[in-house]
Amino acid sequence: MRRLHPEDLLLLLGARPRADVGAWLRDGLRDAVASGRLEAGVALPSSRAAAAGLGVSRGTVAAAVDELVGEGVLESRPRSSVVVADLARRPRGAAPGPARAGAEAPGERPASVGAPDPALFPRAAWARAVRDATRELPDAELGYPDPQGLLELRLALAAHLRTARAAPVEARDVVIVSGVAQGLALLGEVLAERSAGRRIAVEDPASPGVVTQLRDAGLEVVPVPVDDRGIRTDALPDAAAAVVTPAHQFPLGVVLAPERRRELVAWARDGGRLLLEDDYDAELRYDRQPVGALRGLDPDHVVLLGSVSKLLSPSLRLGWVVAPAGARDALVDAKRRADLGCSVPEQAAFARLIADGAYARHLRRARLAYKGRRGLLLDALARDAPQLVVEGVAAGLHLVVRLPDDDAEARAVAALRDVGVPAEALSGMSVRPGSRGVVVGAARVQGSAVARVVEILAAAGGVEATSQEK
Amino acid sequence: MRRLHPEDLLLLLGARPRADVGAWLRDGLRDAVASGRLEAGVALPSSRAAAAGLGVSRGTVAAAVDELVGEGVLESRPRSSVVVADLARRPRGAAPGPARAGAEAPGERPASVGAPDPALFPRAAWARAVRDATRELPDAELGYPDPQGLLELRLALAAHLRTARAAPVEARDVVIVSGVAQGLALLGEVLAERSAGRRIAVEDPASPGVVTQLRDAGLEVVPVPVDDRGIRTDALPDAAAAVVTPAHQFPLGVVLAPERRRELVAWARDGGRLLLEDDYDAELRYDRQPVGALRGLDPDHVVLLGSVSKLLSPSLRLGWVVAPAGARDALVDAKRRADLGCSVPEQAAFARLIADGAYARHLRRARLAYKGRRGLLLDALARDAPQLVVEGVAAGLHLVVRLPDDDAEARAVAALRDVGVPAEALSGMSVRPGSRGVVVGAARVQGSAVARVVEILAAAGGVEATSQEK
Repeated sequence: MRRLHPEDLLLLLGARPRADVGAWLRDGLRDAVASGRLEAGVALPSSRAAAAGLGVSRGTVAAAVDELVGEGVLESRPRSSVVVADLARRPRGAAPGPARAGAEAPGERPASVGAPDPALFPRAAWARAVRDATRELPDAELGYPDPQGLLELRLALAAHLRTARAAPVEARDVVIVSGVAQGLALLGEVLAERSAGRRIAVEDPASPGVVTQLRDAGLEVVPVPVDDRGIRTDALPDAAAAVVTPAHQFPLGVVLAPERRRELVAWARDGGRLLLEDDYDAELRYDRQPVGALRGLDPDHVVLLGSVSKLLSPSLRLGWVVAPAGARDALVDAKRRADLGCSVPEQAAFARLIADGAYARHLRRARLAYKGRRGLLLDALARDAPQLVVEGVAAGLHLVVRLPDDDAEARAVAALRDVGVPAEALSGMSVRPGSRGVVVGAARVQGSAVARVVEILAAAGGVEATSQEK
Repeated sequence: MRRLHPEDLLLLLGARPRADVGAWLRDGLRDAVASGRLEAGVALPSSRAAAAGLGVSRGTVAAAVDELVGEGVLESRPRSSVVVADLARRPRGAAPGPARAGAEAPGERPASVGAPDPALFPRAAWARAVRDATRELPDAELGYPDPQGLLELRLALAAHLRTARAAPVEARDVVIVSGVAQGLALLGEVLAERSAGRRIAVEDPASPGVVTQLRDAGLEVVPVPVDDRGIRTDALPDAAAAVVTPAHQFPLGVVLAPERRRELVAWARDGGRLLLEDDYDAELRYDRQPVGALRGLDPDHVVLLGSVSKLLSPSLRLGWVVAPAGARDALVDAKRRADLGCSVPEQAAFARLIADGAYARHLRRARLAYKGRRGLLLDALARDAPQLVVEGVAAGLHLVVRLPDDDAEARAVAALRDVGVPAEALSGMSVRPGSRGVVVGAARVQGSAVARVVEILAAAGGVEATSQEK
């Protein structure tokens, strides 16, 4: 760790003004970090040394530092070290050390258990697509956007989804949104405006983010249990709609059984209800073609939601809602009210990526990579912790391991996060008190991280990892 | 290259109607392309073969094809081949003909009166910034975004706004949103959650978009008249907040007088109210430095909203809310509920554009260009229609001309739109019945369009344009 010499600090800040020394110090440091002259990880001199070097009081130094720590520009570390936070001009993805393979640097926002490996994001292809789209967009597209979405993207997505999700989709059915979270928020508004009521069924367990989104939209969430054939259609309540993950239940990983698909659709059709099909990772099936979208069974009662979050990157905030004719206008209105529409250059870039085949190539590559990682992790678990049962089909970016009790659950979550692997308590994803287990974000688990994850899961499950390789 | 057989064409279009065969052909082809049934690159039969196969005249085929080529649905290739256009690779913005300078192609979404000239959008700089940002973003930023916004952008914007808007802004005060529309929608939610009530004061006249946004957020809009010194502070109602445009009233173009600024801030402070300062075009002042942001007077009661919509392009959907500490957490929560956050690569690109000076250079260039155009238009109006009075200070992208009655207003709006110049009725921007006039989107009015606009305004105002140049 480089520690800045007090004289370098003076060099960096320039001549000390007569008045407002605190602002000079604070703004100078902030600018130095923002401009990259002070790099992430560099330690500041002690406040005593800095004060002496700059000819100011220790209190002035401490106040400026406190403020910058509050802004996230500096970071307090143990043993009173203050370092430049890892932010603005950080060099591209400093590789995590071998002890933290598949992990994130400390102090960052924790990754979601469903987040893809950023190392697989096709940076070059996306960078080229967005550059070319920006250069070549017709002038007429540089005004306020069409709130429904750029026609070019709706055409490309419709063609892609027809093939990839075996569902009838036309460009006019598609509404471009800033991710599934926004799609659900807008649909929540649409449902709340309908007379049908504000009750909405959700699978239990489910993504806490989805449940929060629906509740924030003013809907009453009614949990429906999930078993090894998917949502229990015999337990469907009277509600205006249901959010379902038929292709790959989140988090349990089961696929909705064929007769349950039919029963679910009948429930929607008979009651004039909507099924919100959260198709979050259906294109990441590793053992066979994914089951077709539910929308194929009844385009009038199924709303298909998807996004690039699992397939490209959640940082892009691009998603789609394929809506029945009866809900489409209200949805477009809600999108207009929310933000007038999505970024046109980004929409055009995504349309290009689909149209020129780069998206399909990326999906093939990502599937292969994740399939390989999942295989190695499951093999290691089967070999070294055979008592543990991993649930769900060969798909997606996460896996679920049941654990005996609260204590085991808490230990597993903490230990996994400690080594930088995203993890959530299964009980925390249950609306009603549910079983205990851990949902592991496996997208980045590879190399030496595999053995660590196996060891942690085995320990939490009350078994010793039996590997001789360790 | 696949060439469509004339019989397939009939299959695609369905039975020929008795009347309006041209529309059947044109709409059927457009739908077939839009739905993906006709793929990019497929060649149509020759017009002779198509006419024979469909039993229509060659002229009918040619007219339909021409129209679709104009729309970009089809493409003419050398040797009289017409192929289905690759909508993802449409050639960049066919320049409008000289007769429609400053105008839009027919059939497109009409531009807003406040939209900038897309020809001034710094495509190359933006394309480079977004490409480089995408390439160099740290892996850790490719997960779900910080709902408050990318720290890099908040730092860069804070520094820019401190200088450009003479207001105290720190990175921690800034929330990145998808434009001012979203900012207002989110603030509407925040206000609705407060006990202070749901009444919000707006200037009258005001942007109809803003009024709609506030009403859609469930707020009761209370209009306050505007005179030549800005909003009438003696008429401020009891309300939880007010939306104001102090730097350049929209649409009337006046600047809020100094004592009114103080009275407005006192109203907010004394009542624990919020002022939402819509700073939509303050950086486009042509005769002097813009007045500083109201936020400078009272950072605890003023929320400063801005966006790139007038300064770069409304197609980008990027804006900011500089919020007092008391409203910030609720605002970030509302943003998280709405869509989890803004696109990270676009935020990083904008941060780069600011940090490397390209944004400041663009603003200087844009100011110069708009100042020149505004000057020529005002000169022409003064010379050829001296009876007309143009209101407001030298700023922004629109101008307002008062007209005697409804009829003159309607004629001016229709005639301007007819030649492709964005125009709105002033009465349509009034919450209470207000005066008549036309708000002209002047950003693209130059060259031969100047004389046309003068002629239309003079005619509507009941005066003859006196130019000898015509």
